[in-house]
Amino acid sequence: MSKIRLTKRYTFETGHALYGYDGKCKNVHGHGYKMFVTIIGEPIQDSDHVKHGMVMDFGDLKKIVKEEIVDKYDHAIVFSKNSPHKELGETLKEKGHHVILADFQPTSEMLVLHFADIIRKRLPENIELYSIKLQETETSYAEWYASDND
Amino acid sequence: MSKIRLTKRYTFETGHALYGYDGKCKNVHGHGYKMFVTIIGEPIQDSDHVKHGMVMDFGDLKKIVKEEIVDKYDHAIVFSKNSPHKELGETLKEKGHHVILADFQPTSEMLVLHFADIIRKRLPENIELYSIKLQETETSYAEWYASDND
Amino acid sequence: MSKIRLTKRYTFETGHALYGYDGKCKNVHGHGYKMFVTIIGEPIQDSDHVKHGMVMDFGDLKKIVKEEIVDKYDHAIVFSKNSPHKELGETLKEKGHHVILADFQPTSEMLVLHFADIIRKRLPENIELYSIKLQETETSYAEWYASDND
Repeated sequence: MSKIRLTKRYTFETGHALYGYDGKCKNVHGHGYKMFVTIIGEPIQDSDHVKHGMVMDFGDLKKIVKEEIVDKYDHAIVFSKNSPHKELGETLKEKGHHVILADFQPTSEMLVLHFADIIRKRLPENIELYSIKLQETETSYAEWYASDND
Repeated sequence: MSKIRLTKRYTFETGHALYGYDGKCKNVHGHGYKMFVTIIGEPIQDSDHVKHGMVMDFGDLKKIVKEEIVDKYDHAIVFSKNSPHKELGETLKEKGHHVILADFQPTSEMLVLHFADIIRKRLPENIELYSIKLQETETSYAEWYASDND
Repeated sequence: MSKIRLTKRYTFETGHALYGYDGKCKNVHGHGYKMFVTIIGEPIQDSDHVKHGMVMDFGDLKKIVKEEIVDKYDHAIVFSKNSPHKELGETLKEKGHHVILADFQPTSEMLVLHFADIIRKRLPENIELYSIKLQETETSYAEWYASDND
């Protein structure tokens, strides 16, 4: 059977700041992120299967990414815990905000790489993560592809 | 000469239902499908050729896909003829509706695969079908790539 | 470190005409071009670097493409200097218009190829041009990929 890629789009509103950066992103701010998660596999050929003709149910892909990424990052703020932003994050946490202290600088590049690691582990057998696109603004995005890294 | 990919976008409004599926798509409904057909080839270098500098005239690609897919699927409904939906399709046909009885479950995955088979056969020599993207909703799409299957 | 692709989108309003073509594009007209430039590289891992966590600063990519392409092509008109359109271009230049006399037929295919040649030469070490997408209309685009041509 042929291989088909499936993509599901997500959105989440997340704050961040880049410690030590020489541009505007050093300030606390946020983005309306759009994320496109693409998996690859073969459509199920068993006509008695409830997912007959599908590589994966779009709803199942939606659920995995919602649980692992969207529910955690939406209306939260992400800082590097390896920088003085750690303290700022702790202050915001004390005031009741949702703060993610990441083990990396929260650029689009490092976020998309982190999301790829997380989603890969949650996919069912026979389904591979093909790529993730993380769009920071209408004109800027970062992409991780399995084929660039295997 | 370098190879360049060309893409043309199409839309068609098509009904479907997935027999035996355990979700909302088991019901008769429809989508405003968007389809992106991508071909690859080398731009014509003969300056006396009316298509000088083109891989293929966008208008010629439009015509092929319109004839083979858009004109048939737009404002029609597609069912699997290998399921009890065959009868439902025949009932609708008798009432004057446009019905396509397909030899597969009409998921986005199986539709995009079917469209790839059809379009490949209609392309001129020296032009290859590179990929097709079939977008079912604003947040969900399936893609067939020649490179995933050759 | 993993490789990540980065894309920046640009727009420019440019006139053109295709000499000798057998369709509407033989007439002087224009498009609101959208261009997507994609580069690939590894995010910088040195936490003391001002670009820590970035493959390349989106702002730096923006600047290169703005200088090399957008500032030159926006509100200009492009003709092939190997055709009788050369004279038309010279007439328009005399009247104070911005005219680009290109060494090729200004189709989307040839423009995207030309832009790839220009941008490749301006990228810093360790950064490769991955692809360029040049969108002529909402439904038509041409793409150059390094991987199709190396």
